Amino acid sequence: MEIFYAHEISAREVFLDTDESAHCVRVLRHRTGDEITVVDGLGTMMRCRVTDDSPKGVSAEILESFPGWGGHPYSLTMAVCPTKNNDRFEWFVEKATEVGVDRIVPVIGERSERRVFKPERSRKIALSAMKQSLKACLPSVEEPIPVKDFISFPYAEIKLICYCFEGDTERRSIEDVLREVPEGSDITVMIGPEGDFSPQEAQLAVENGFIPVHLGPSRLRTETAAVTAATAVYLHFMK
Amino acid sequence: MEIFYAHEISAREVFLDTDESAHCVRVLRHRTGDEITVVDGLGTMMRCRVTDDSPKGVSAEILESFPGWGGHPYSLTMAVCPTKNNDRFEWFVEKATEVGVDRIVPVIGERSERRVFKPERSRKIALSAMKQSLKACLPSVEEPIPVKDFISFPYAEIKLICYCFEGDTERRSIEDVLREVPEGSDITVMIGPEGDFSPQEAQLAVENGFIPVHLGPSRLRTETAAVTAATAVYLHFMK
Repeated sequence: MEIFYAHEISAREVFLDTDESAHCVRVLRHRTGDEITVVDGLGTMMRCRVTDDSPKGVSAEILESFPGWGGHPYSLTMAVCPTKNNDRFEWFVEKATEVGVDRIVPVIGERSERRVFKPERSRKIALSAMKQSLKACLPSVEEPIPVKDFISFPYAEIKLICYCFEGDTERRSIEDVLREVPEGSDITVMIGPEGDFSPQEAQLAVENGFIPVHLGPSRLRTETAAVTAATAVYLHFMK
Repeated sequence: MEIFYAHEISAREVFLDTDESAHCVRVLRHRTGDEITVVDGLGTMMRCRVTDDSPKGVSAEILESFPGWGGHPYSLTMAVCPTKNNDRFEWFVEKATEVGVDRIVPVIGERSERRVFKPERSRKIALSAMKQSLKACLPSVEEPIPVKDFISFPYAEIKLICYCFEGDTERRSIEDVLREVPEGSDITVMIGPEGDFSPQEAQLAVENGFIPVHLGPSRLRTETAAVTAATAVYLHFMK
């Protein structure tokens, strides 16, 4: 099953951009009259019939709409420090999108080696992962912000910080904490850089209501920790 | 913390191969008398003191041994069909090693597009992932075998097959099945190729005691499904 992303939608019609149109017409050889599956990136899937098969701009008539298609019973924000190696962060973006994430915030920590991050490539990866995994909702990949600024925003109901807190006995496992999290919750998970958060950042997070959690005995790379946390949330809500 | 892998171990001494020796002496500049951490790939970590700092072959005296270091309270075999794109399979090998896997078996299904697989590169990746994630046990990456041959081996206590079984209502979620799996269990999870298992393969697996499971509502790529399943096992046994 192949799905297309429509950047522009009217009451009755969808319009594909040049990339999607070329893929639809040149690669998949769809023609006027064909039925195609289109998503709006906001959660709705539409069965459509192609009305203009121009490879520069396909338009299609909406036959039927399915809101909340391929959605998940929670809202998840992953605030992750970009990795030294960009591929590793982009890999996280792809995998988190496949299992289910709503918002990806690249956060720059005091110990981040990568202090510059351009979201453009990650947004493309999220888009193709959304289509590949048959979801209608496109996760946002935001502009990078400092960890401390992110911490001080008032937002999610459940805020978790994965931090080593060497020697701290207060830390619970993410599994243990998730057991108390009901369906429909708005969850944020923050993952530090290779060198971990600074003690000040961790302290500030806890003061701002972040629950310190661990991801078990394994020492995980930044991107592995991020995908493991997103997967833990995904699995927790699995029937 | 940096750990080294010793391919050869006597009662009192460990010996590093040329790669590990060069890394130890040339890159990390260890000299005779330095203390280093060495693992045997079989589950034991050893504190050692360098007795010969030759970059071609480091030897070190064993000061103290820690069996079962960085281990996990289960035994996991992941039987996964190699992906068209080798990088994706190798990414699975790295991530599964980080979270915890004991045995990786590349299986070739009737619908596998990739029918040839050379384990050498994946073995190197497993080795560096073992060291990076501070484990003493090196997962084995075996030679590829056909899905049907793998299915007919008698081995694990708990055998799971992730298969779409379109329209099959019998399938349970991996979370649901794992709830009944006690610590110390020997678990095998089999993951199909991009085109899924053939109905015959799935049928044969069920006849041989494989429990059909799903990984939730998302349509996951082969390597994502494999890492998600390995992560589900890892999280299930997390305290």
